[in-house]
Amino acid sequence: MPNIQRLNTIDADFWPRLEALTAWEGVADQTITATVREVLAQVRSRGDDALLEYSCRFDRLNLAHAADLEIPAARLHHALTVISAEQRTALAMAAARIRSYAERQKLESWRFTEADGTVLGQQVTPLDRVGVYVPGGKAAYPSSVLMNAIPAKVAGVPEIIMVAPTPDGALNELVLAAAAVAGVDRVFTLGGAQAVAALAYGTATVPRVDKIVGPGNIYVAAAKRQVFGTVGIDLIAGPSEILVLCDGRTDPDWIAMDLFSQAEHDEDAQPILISPDTAFLQRVQEAISRLLPKMERAEIITASLHRRAAMIQVRDLSEAAQVVNFIAPEHLELSVERPEELLPLIRHAGAIFMGRYTAEALGDYCAGPNHVLPTSRTARFSSPLGVYDFQKRTSLIYCSPIGATTLGRTASILARGEGLTAHARSAELRLP
Amino acid sequence: MPNIQRLNTIDADFWPRLEALTAWEGVADQTITATVREVLAQVRSRGDDALLEYSCRFDRLNLAHAADLEIPAARLHHALTVISAEQRTALAMAAARIRSYAERQKLESWRFTEADGTVLGQQVTPLDRVGVYVPGGKAAYPSSVLMNAIPAKVAGVPEIIMVAPTPDGALNELVLAAAAVAGVDRVFTLGGAQAVAALAYGTATVPRVDKIVGPGNIYVAAAKRQVFGTVGIDLIAGPSEILVLCDGRTDPDWIAMDLFSQAEHDEDAQPILISPDTAFLQRVQEAISRLLPKMERAEIITASLHRRAAMIQVRDLSEAAQVVNFIAPEHLELSVERPEELLPLIRHAGAIFMGRYTAEALGDYCAGPNHVLPTSRTARFSSPLGVYDFQKRTSLIYCSPIGATTLGRTASILARGEGLTAHARSAELRLP
Repeated sequence: MPNIQRLNTIDADFWPRLEALTAWEGVADQTITATVREVLAQVRSRGDDALLEYSCRFDRLNLAHAADLEIPAARLHHALTVISAEQRTALAMAAARIRSYAERQKLESWRFTEADGTVLGQQVTPLDRVGVYVPGGKAAYPSSVLMNAIPAKVAGVPEIIMVAPTPDGALNELVLAAAAVAGVDRVFTLGGAQAVAALAYGTATVPRVDKIVGPGNIYVAAAKRQVFGTVGIDLIAGPSEILVLCDGRTDPDWIAMDLFSQAEHDEDAQPILISPDTAFLQRVQEAISRLLPKMERAEIITASLHRRAAMIQVRDLSEAAQVVNFIAPEHLELSVERPEELLPLIRHAGAIFMGRYTAEALGDYCAGPNHVLPTSRTARFSSPLGVYDFQKRTSLIYCSPIGATTLGRTASILARGEGLTAHARSAELRLP
Repeated sequence: MPNIQRLNTIDADFWPRLEALTAWEGVADQTITATVREVLAQVRSRGDDALLEYSCRFDRLNLAHAADLEIPAARLHHALTVISAEQRTALAMAAARIRSYAERQKLESWRFTEADGTVLGQQVTPLDRVGVYVPGGKAAYPSSVLMNAIPAKVAGVPEIIMVAPTPDGALNELVLAAAAVAGVDRVFTLGGAQAVAALAYGTATVPRVDKIVGPGNIYVAAAKRQVFGTVGIDLIAGPSEILVLCDGRTDPDWIAMDLFSQAEHDEDAQPILISPDTAFLQRVQEAISRLLPKMERAEIITASLHRRAAMIQVRDLSEAAQVVNFIAPEHLELSVERPEELLPLIRHAGAIFMGRYTAEALGDYCAGPNHVLPTSRTARFSSPLGVYDFQKRTSLIYCSPIGATTLGRTASILARGEGLTAHARSAELRLP
C-alpha cells in the first residue's frame, strides 16, 4: 500500500519540508536544450525537408510529400461519425459550456475624452493565427483540443493550426472529432520540437503562427521556451496537481478518488490533502488502500502517491489557507461546509472547486472554465488559459493641439532630465 | 549625411526586403547563456555572498555587508528634494496621468449562477511581490520607474522591489525620486543577471518576488528568459522602434524629429517613415540632413539611421496599413488628416499616436498609457505593460448536487474516452 508522506504544521521543519515537497525543476537540461536548438535550426533553414526527416525518424512515418503531413478537414468530420453518439453529445455539451464561459472573458476596447479634447484608449484585437500543440501517445486528450482551441475561436482568431504527432500513423478519432467540434482550421501530423519550429518559423507547407499553446513533453517545453519572443507561448506546464482542503466531513472515498484523478495523469503528478482532522486523514488513507487495487491505472497512481503525494495536518482552516497560498495549487478543492467563507483567504490558485459535490474532474471536461491552468506554484503570477490569451491590446493616444501643449511641456522637462533631447524637441516643436 | 534605405511597395522584392529590414535576433548567444546560467546558479546557492562579489567585480562597489546593497527609503525621499521644482512637478503630473489611465485597466472579478444552482466565476487577485529592474548607465530612465511600478501599485501589489545597478556608487537622483513618487517599497543597488537571480530566488537580504519586469541589457534579458517559470517576466524587449505613417502634409521637421526621438535611444533603434508622397519623403530626408548636425546625440542617431532606418513609399494609405500590420510596430504615428479612418485597418501595434500633434515622445513620459510596449514585431501577440500584468485570475466552480449530476455524466463519458477512469469515477461517485 502506498506510503504517503505526512506533514504537520506544528512540526518545526514544516515550511522547509513543504517547499521541498512542492519544488519542481521543469527546466530542460543542457543536452535537451542543445538537441532542441539543433532541431529548431534545421527546420528553420531546411523547412519541409527537415520535417519529413524528423517525422520519419521519430514517428516512423514515410511520407513522400510534405503535403501529406496535413490531415484534410474531411477526415476530421469523418471522425465525428466514427465516435459513439454518446461521445458526440458529450463533446458538443462540453464545447458549448467552454464557449459560453469563454464569452464572458472577452476583453473590450475602450476610450475616453479629456477636457481639452485629448483622447486616450485601449484597442483590443485578436491574434491573426494560433498554433495548438496536442501531444500524442498516452496524453492525447480531446478535452485538451477543446480547451486550447475554443478560447482562441471566441477571441476571434481567424485561423487555428493544430499539430499532433501520430506515431506509426495512428490517428486518435476522439482528438480529430474534438478538432472538428472546436473549429480548428488545419491539422498537421507533427510532434516534438520540430512541430514547434514549424509553427514558429513556418515552412512551405505549415503556416507560421503568432502564438503556440498546448501541453507537451520536455522537448516541446524546451522548444517553446526557445522560440518565445519569435512567437508568443502559453505557460510551460509542469506535472498536474490537486490540493484538497477538507473539513473532515466529506465521504473519504470521494476524496481518495479525487486524489487518484490527478495521480493517474503521471508518476510526477502531485495529489495533496489538507485537513485539521487527524482521524479523517486516516480514513482517507484507508480508502486509498481499499480503492487503489481496483483502479485501471493503479501503477501510475501508486508511483505518484509514493513520489509526490502528501497529507498535511493543520490546526484549522485558516491555517490551511496559508498552506494553500504557499503551494498556489493548480487545482484546489474546498471540500468544506461553507467554501464561500474560505474564499477570501485564498490568494493563489489556478481553479477553485467549491463544495463537496464539485469534483475537480468536472472542471477537466465540461464545467466551462479552462483546464489549462498554472502548475508548479506559478499561480502566484499567472492565470488559466483564456480568451484574453488570444487577444492583445494597443494603446490609443490622440492629443488635441491644446493637449499637445500641456503634455509637451511636461514631456520636455522629463526628456531633458534623461538626456534625451530629440524626445524633448519633438514635443517642443508642437508647442505654440 | 545619413544614407537612409528606400523601399517601395511596387518593387518585386519589397516584402522580402521588409522582412530583412525588420528582422531582429534578440536571442542571447551560447556564451552569454552559459555565463548567465553560472551567475544564476551562484546567487541561488550562495545568496548574498555571490551578490557582493558580483557587485564588486562589475560595479566596483566594495560593500562590507549585504544590507549595504539597500538604499534606505529616506534616501529616496531625499532625492525628491534634490531635483528641481520643475522636475518634481513634471514627475508628479506624469505619475498622476499614468495612474489614472492604469485605473481603467483594472480587471474585476465576476461570477454568474446557472439555472440548477451551479456557480461559475473568475476571481482576480494581485501578485504578492513584484521586482522592477531599472538599468544603470546611459539607459537609466526615471520614466521607466514610473511606467513599471505604477501599474503594479494600481493592481494592488503590496510590495514592489526595485533593483538598479550603481556603477562606482553613482546614484541617479531622478531615478530615486521617481521611485519615491511611484511608491516603490524597497530599492537595492544591484544590476545584471545577478539582480535577476536575487529577485527570482531571493537571498537573506533581497526578498524573492513573483514577477520581474523592466528593461535591461542582453545579460538581463537572458537571465529573465532563464528564470521564466520560477517567476513571471514581462516581454523581452528589443531595440525601440517608431513607424510614422504620414499623408505628406505634416511639417517635415516634426516628422524628422519624431524619427530622431527613437533613433537617439541606441544604434539599433529603428525609425521608419511610410508615405504615399515621394516629394514628402524627400523633404523629410532634407529636414533630417539639416537638423541632424545640431542634435546632442547625433552620433547615435546617425548610426541608427544608417543601420536600421527606412523610408517606404506606398501606393496609398490602405496599402500603408498592410505594411504597418506586417511590421507590428512598437510605436505607430498616424500623422494624417483623419487618423480615425485608418484605425480600423490597423491590427497590430503597441501604441498608436493619432494626428499630427501627437508626438510619440508624449507617450514616453506623460500621456498616460504605458511606454513599455512590445517590440520586434511582438505586437502581433502581445500588449503594452499594464495593470493586468500584475493581476491574475482564478477560476471558480461551485456545482450544486444537481449540477454535479448533469456535468458528472458528461465528464464520465469524456474521461472514459481518454482512458482516465479515476477521473470518471470521481465524477460518478457524486451521482445520485
